[in-house]
Amino acid sequence: VSDSEHPTSAPIVLIHSGAGGRTEDLLTRGEDYRAALAATIARARAALEAGGDAVAAVLAAVTFMEDDVDLFNAGRGSVLCRDGTVEMSAGLMRGADRAAGAVANLRTTRRPIHAAQAVLIDSPHVLLAGPAADAFAERAGLEQCPVDYFVTERQQQRLAQGSGDFVGGTVGAVCLDGQGGLAAATSTGGRPGQWPGRVGDTPSIGAGTWADDRVAVSCTGDGEAFIRSGASRRLALDVSRGTAVEEAGAAALADVAAAGGTGGLIAVTSSGEVTLAFTTAAMGRVLWRAGSEPEIWVAD
Amino acid sequence: VSDSEHPTSAPIVLIHSGAGGRTEDLLTRGEDYRAALAATIARARAALEAGGDAVAAVLAAVTFMEDDVDLFNAGRGSVLCRDGTVEMSAGLMRGADRAAGAVANLRTTRRPIHAAQAVLIDSPHVLLAGPAADAFAERAGLEQCPVDYFVTERQQQRLAQGSGDFVGGTVGAVCLDGQGGLAAATSTGGRPGQWPGRVGDTPSIGAGTWADDRVAVSCTGDGEAFIRSGASRRLALDVSRGTAVEEAGAAALADVAAAGGTGGLIAVTSSGEVTLAFTTAAMGRVLWRAGSEPEIWVAD
Repeated sequence: VSDSEHPTSAPIVLIHSGAGGRTEDLLTRGEDYRAALAATIARARAALEAGGDAVAAVLAAVTFMEDDVDLFNAGRGSVLCRDGTVEMSAGLMRGADRAAGAVANLRTTRRPIHAAQAVLIDSPHVLLAGPAADAFAERAGLEQCPVDYFVTERQQQRLAQGSGDFVGGTVGAVCLDGQGGLAAATSTGGRPGQWPGRVGDTPSIGAGTWADDRVAVSCTGDGEAFIRSGASRRLALDVSRGTAVEEAGAAALADVAAAGGTGGLIAVTSSGEVTLAFTTAAMGRVLWRAGSEPEIWVAD
Repeated sequence: VSDSEHPTSAPIVLIHSGAGGRTEDLLTRGEDYRAALAATIARARAALEAGGDAVAAVLAAVTFMEDDVDLFNAGRGSVLCRDGTVEMSAGLMRGADRAAGAVANLRTTRRPIHAAQAVLIDSPHVLLAGPAADAFAERAGLEQCPVDYFVTERQQQRLAQGSGDFVGGTVGAVCLDGQGGLAAATSTGGRPGQWPGRVGDTPSIGAGTWADDRVAVSCTGDGEAFIRSGASRRLALDVSRGTAVEEAGAAALADVAAAGGTGGLIAVTSSGEVTLAFTTAAMGRVLWRAGSEPEIWVAD
């Protein structure tokens, strides 16, 4: 499945809220998801209208989805590890200079994408993981919460039922701003029932998150397959060699399938081409271009 | 700098012991390094002669270098984090099915590359990080040691002196076995003075470690730049599109340079082409092809 259009003027913002099945949750709460996605894109637009760049726009979008407790698998309300804890990860990349910041396995930092931003700005490293990452975020002044704050009854029920049903997905955003800047951001609580300590594709630059001077990409799905595909790096290299982004995105998802997984991705190029593609039954997503109304899809 | 040859018969094993400066350590202890690299390639050859595949060969090589306390930045004797601790990471990938296992920020597991192997074999995940990764390794039956076991006086002196000098590098191996199988393995203590919790390129599949059905790659150098380049995934995609591996390796290192870093890489293709390339002053490395004597380079 793929949505694609011809290039047009910036800014452009794309959002996804996870690839998964066309579940009861998506079908019965479709309007809730639609409203949340509309509010999310409004935040990204507001950031741009306030003079923010592509990084500011994707941060605004992802922060808003992290703050939503019910609908998304990011921040509070994330899926649970098999031991009932929440471990959160996020990745951020700026296209112009490929500056990147990412965090894995946060347990106390309220907004993981802000921690990724702090790593990008205030550390010599790209990825910090585990208790040291929470400690860094705390030193950076980011809000800390008790570990139980992140655990919701809804996700406890889901873990107890061993349900593979889609209940909230990884969230991500990509943006081409009015100055030609590109950025990508992704945030997640990982896979339902994952092992504590697991690092997935979201904070893995070149797997679930990537931006360079030609394209910005955010992925969602079977994270291990996205890592074993190097999915977003692959897409970007194809685009840099002249492949249309829709074709490059389809090839990346085919390669993820060859690595045994399904999922989806959103990408925008420096020339304003976009793709919002997925191999699952559904992927919540939004496409907004300057001068147009946002297009929002939920259970398809 | 690049060494390359025309294809010939398998098996082929390449080893690196880190890219860095032509330091006093390399110049005065050149014979120690040479002897250790010769012993390392002998272990890989022995594994192949015993019927092992490419994975067995790279594991044998990397394990031997992890066990060396003085010469390499892996296992005991690794460089120290800025707080004086040792955190070790390793990555392993099998080309045939792109199965991958990796660990980051181990503090008690004696042989990190064995933990990466255990993740590949015994977990549904690709990368485990932090205390949970050590706990997993312990459950897998891998030897655990006190954290102080890994800290050597030599590395303490180096940290105290704030020396940027090269004292032991990341280690890695790639192999094409007699059945056409490819594998890559990399192990490291990270960057001198790194922040605890930092995850570098070594355990990041597609950055410092990669193998598919066409090529196996292991990298060393400024890890953050290798991540922000997606260096090994980039090389592999170029090879899959028909680029010669020497050219693809040079392009990958040029891209790492564009991301602000230097380093080196070794790669072998399914048709037996190799490259051992670096943009630093020196990279310890070995090239061995069936029927030939190993070629060993240290301070060049």
